Amino acid sequence: MEALEKRIRRKDLLGKMTTPERAALSVKEGMRVATGGTTHAGYPRAFFKALAERFKKGERVKFDLHTCSPLGREIDGELAGLDVIHRRLSHQAQPPMAKAINEGKILYADMGGCVHATQARYGFFGTMDLVIVEAIAVTPEGFIIPSTAMSDIPSFIKVAKQIIIEINLTLPEGLEGIHDVYIPENPPHRKTIPILRPTDRIGTPYIEVDPKKILHIIGSDLKGSLPTRPPVDKNSEMIAHHFIQFLEEEVRQERLPSHLFPLQVGLGGVAEAVVRGLANSKFEGLWIHSALLNDAVLDLIDSEKVLEASGAGLYFSEEGLARFFKNLDRYKKVLVIRPLDISCSPEVIQRLGVISLNGAIEVDIYGHINSTHIGGGRILTGVAGSIEFARNSSISTFLTPSVTKGTDVSCIVPMVTHVDHTEHEVSLIVTEQGYADLRGLDPRERARLIIDHCAHPEFRPLLHSYLDSAIKQTGGHEPQLLDDPFPFHRRLKETGKMKQ
Amino acid sequence: MEALEKRIRRKDLLGKMTTPERAALSVKEGMRVATGGTTHAGYPRAFFKALAERFKKGERVKFDLHTCSPLGREIDGELAGLDVIHRRLSHQAQPPMAKAINEGKILYADMGGCVHATQARYGFFGTMDLVIVEAIAVTPEGFIIPSTAMSDIPSFIKVAKQIIIEINLTLPEGLEGIHDVYIPENPPHRKTIPILRPTDRIGTPYIEVDPKKILHIIGSDLKGSLPTRPPVDKNSEMIAHHFIQFLEEEVRQERLPSHLFPLQVGLGGVAEAVVRGLANSKFEGLWIHSALLNDAVLDLIDSEKVLEASGAGLYFSEEGLARFFKNLDRYKKVLVIRPLDISCSPEVIQRLGVISLNGAIEVDIYGHINSTHIGGGRILTGVAGSIEFARNSSISTFLTPSVTKGTDVSCIVPMVTHVDHTEHEVSLIVTEQGYADLRGLDPRERARLIIDHCAHPEFRPLLHSYLDSAIKQTGGHEPQLLDDPFPFHRRLKETGKMKQ
Repeated sequence: MEALEKRIRRKDLLGKMTTPERAALSVKEGMRVATGGTTHAGYPRAFFKALAERFKKGERVKFDLHTCSPLGREIDGELAGLDVIHRRLSHQAQPPMAKAINEGKILYADMGGCVHATQARYGFFGTMDLVIVEAIAVTPEGFIIPSTAMSDIPSFIKVAKQIIIEINLTLPEGLEGIHDVYIPENPPHRKTIPILRPTDRIGTPYIEVDPKKILHIIGSDLKGSLPTRPPVDKNSEMIAHHFIQFLEEEVRQERLPSHLFPLQVGLGGVAEAVVRGLANSKFEGLWIHSALLNDAVLDLIDSEKVLEASGAGLYFSEEGLARFFKNLDRYKKVLVIRPLDISCSPEVIQRLGVISLNGAIEVDIYGHINSTHIGGGRILTGVAGSIEFARNSSISTFLTPSVTKGTDVSCIVPMVTHVDHTEHEVSLIVTEQGYADLRGLDPRERARLIIDHCAHPEFRPLLHSYLDSAIKQTGGHEPQLLDDPFPFHRRLKETGKMKQ
Repeated sequence: MEALEKRIRRKDLLGKMTTPERAALSVKEGMRVATGGTTHAGYPRAFFKALAERFKKGERVKFDLHTCSPLGREIDGELAGLDVIHRRLSHQAQPPMAKAINEGKILYADMGGCVHATQARYGFFGTMDLVIVEAIAVTPEGFIIPSTAMSDIPSFIKVAKQIIIEINLTLPEGLEGIHDVYIPENPPHRKTIPILRPTDRIGTPYIEVDPKKILHIIGSDLKGSLPTRPPVDKNSEMIAHHFIQFLEEEVRQERLPSHLFPLQVGLGGVAEAVVRGLANSKFEGLWIHSALLNDAVLDLIDSEKVLEASGAGLYFSEEGLARFFKNLDRYKKVLVIRPLDISCSPEVIQRLGVISLNGAIEVDIYGHINSTHIGGGRILTGVAGSIEFARNSSISTFLTPSVTKGTDVSCIVPMVTHVDHTEHEVSLIVTEQGYADLRGLDPRERARLIIDHCAHPEFRPLLHSYLDSAIKQTGGHEPQLLDDPFPFHRRLKETGKMKQ
C-alpha cells in the first residue's frame, strides 16, 4: 500500500484506494467498459484478473468492451471463455477471443484505431460507463500519467462517466515525461494536430481528468509475459532484402530523399528482418512513426540510424525493457508515446509522408489485401491502425511470404476472399520472391507484375492461367471469373492444398 | 486577340500567344500530359479540340494523360477513340473512355483525387512534360488565375516542365479572388493545412508559376455543354427523406449538433433530392465541404440554410452559371474553389468532421461498397475523391436505390464483385426502403439490418437465405459462400435478372 500511496500525488485521492477485487465489482450489466494497452503491456492486469475471478465464481453480467488493442492472453483469453462480453470494439488478436467472435458468442466490430477514438469522442457509442487505465502515477492535480501504452484511452476518458486507475508498481515513475497526450476537439472546434516531426510535443505528459470521475485507484505488481524477440528466417530476410532494394532504387531515382520518409515498423519476423536490413544499409537520419515500438527500434536508435521515433505503445521484450529502463533518460529524448488515434491520424501520417509496412494474409493479383479473414468467414485479427497507415502513407507497403504451409498455400491468390485494403491504397507488394511496385499501373499490368515478381514459382502458371481465362471470358478493366473466383480456396478446402 | 491580350497582364508574355492548333503540336510521343477540370467545365477545350483535330488528320503519337477529373465528352470521348492515350490517371467517367479502358486499349490506374496530386508532387510519376490549364487571366507577375475548376492542376504545375495556358474568354475576370491555391510541401517540410472551416483562405488567389515554363498562351471562346439539373424521382425523394430522418435522429440523440457537421454533396438526382430535403428541413447554419458545387448549393446559400461552401470545381447548369455570375460578388464571399487534393484532403475532411454522401453501384450485406465495376470486370467510372471522403468523414454515407432495371437488379447483393470502400469505412447505407446505421455493429447484425431496412422486399428472402446458408455452411465472423459467392450476378448473366 505504501508504494501505491507514494504514487498518488494528489493526497485527497488516497481515499479512492481499494483492492482489485472491490474495483472489479464496478462492472455492471449492460455497461460500456473501455480500456487500453498492447498485447503484452500497458493494460490493467490486476483489474481484469480480479474481474475474471469474479465471474469464475459463477456470477454473470454482460458488458461491452471497448479497446483498440488486443489485451494480453490472460485477459482476452479468459474473458472470451467466460461469456461476459456482449460486444467488443475494435481490435483483437488473441485466438480465444477470435474463436468466441467466430462462434457468434461475442459481437465484434472491426475498425481503425483512429476511427474508434474519433467516433467515441463524437459520442457515437454513447458515454463510456467505466474506463480502466493503467498508469504509473497520479499527479498533484489528480491527472493520470499513463504507462507503456496509451491506446485510445485519452479519448475514452473524454466521454467517461467513471474511471478506475490501476497503478503498475513494476514500472518506474521515471517514465513520466515520455507521453504526449493530445485530444482533438469535436467539430466545429477541432484544430490542426501540429505535429511536423515524429517527436514534436503538442500536448501534456498526463491525461487530464476530472478527479470527481475517479472511482477507484488500485495498485498492481503483476508482470505479464513480455514478447520474445521474433526469430528471422530465410524468407523474412529475403523480403527485407527486396524492400530495402526498392528503397535504394527510390533514392537513386530521386523519388525519396536519402534519409527516406518516416517509417512505420511492424511486429514479427519480417519487421525484425527489415530493421536488421536498415541497420546494415547506407540509410541514415531515419525517423520512425509507428503504432508500436519494439526492440528493433531501440537497436536503430542505439546505432544512430534512427534519430527519433513515436508510437502509441512499447512492445519490448524482457531484454528490451531492461535496456530501455537502464537508459531511460536518453531514450526519453528521442521517443514519444502518443494516443493511438494521433499515431494513426490520417493527418499526421500523410503530413509526415510515412512509408507504411503492413502484413497480409493474402494479396490478390490486382493488389487488394485481405489482412483479417480466412476460410471465407473466420476472423484472425482486427485491422487496427493498419487501416490508417495504409490509406494515408506515401508508399503503402504490404510484406508477406509468397507461400505458407510449405508451399501448399499461396499468399497470392486470384481474388481475395475479404478486402481490408483496396487496390486504391496499395503501392507496393513484397515477398521473398521480389517486389511489385504498383503505383500508377493498370490492373492487368499489376497482375502480371505481382504474379511474376511476388508469387511463388509453383503458383505462377495457375495464376497466369486464371488471369488469361478472366481476360478471355469476362474481359474489362479488372476481370474476375465470377463463376469461380476462388479456385485456390476451393482446392484448399477439398484437398488441403491450393495447388492442383 | 485583343480580348486575350487584355487578360495577359504580364506584357512580356504576350509573345507566348499562339493558336490552339500550334499549341497542340507541343504534344510529343511518350509525353506525360496533365490537365484538370470537371465533366462540364474548367478544362482547356480549345487545346484538346485542336489536338484531336491534329490526330484526326492521321498523325499518331501516344502520350499519358494525367487528370483527376473526367473531361468533357467532346474531349475524353474523342481522344478515347483516336488511339493516342497510352495511360490515363486517375479519374474518368465518360462512356467512350471507359470503353477504351475496358478493351485494354488505354492503361488506366484509378486512385483518389488527393493521392494522385500528392504522389505527383513526390515525383512518383516523374515530371509532367506538359500541363495545360484553363485560366481566366494571367497576373502581372505571370501567375495563373484558374477558372471554374482547379482539380489537381496546382500540384501538376509544381512538377511541370512546360505549361500551356488556355484563357477562357467566355468567363468573366470577376471570378478572380474565388480561388484559394495551397500546395503542400513534400515531407519532411510539409506543414499543417490550416483550414478550420470550409471557406478559410490559406493560400493565394492564383497559381504561382515560373514564367519561363510557360510555353504558350491561347484563348478560347468555346462553350461546352453545361449539365442540366437532374430530375428528382420518387425513389430519390424517399432516399433523401430517410437520410434526413437519420440526421434528425442524430441531433435528437445529441450525436450531432443542430447545425450538423459540414456536408459533402454529390451530383445526380439523389443528391438533388437531399438538398431539397435539407432546404425543407429545420436544419440551419450548415456548412458544405465538397468536391464539386452544383446549383443545389446555390439554392441552399440563397435560402440562407448554408452559410458557406467550398469545392474544387463548379458544376452549374446554364441557369445556375447565369445566377452565379449575376451575383458573383455575393457568392464570392461564401464560396471558395480549392485544389482537389485540398478539398479531398484526409486532414481537412477529418478535422471538419464532414458527413460524406456517396453513391454506389452495389452494396453487400456486410457493408462493402462497389462504386466502380460491373459484370466482374468492366469499369464505369473512377473513384476520385469519394475515396478520401468516405475514409475520413464522420459519417460515411452511401446512398443508392435498392433496385435498378425495374426490380430486376438488386443493388444489395450477398458479396460485391469489386470492393472500393470496405466495411471499415462505411457508416450508413440509405435506400428508398430505409436506412441501416452500421456503426459499431457486428457483420451479422449489419447484414440483417441492411437486408431488412435497405434491400427491396422482393430480394429480402433471397438475401436472408444466402446469409443463413453462409452462417451454416461457412460460419465465422463474416461468412461468405466461397463456392457460390455471386449467385445474384450469375442469375443476372444467365437470365437478365438477379431474381430467381
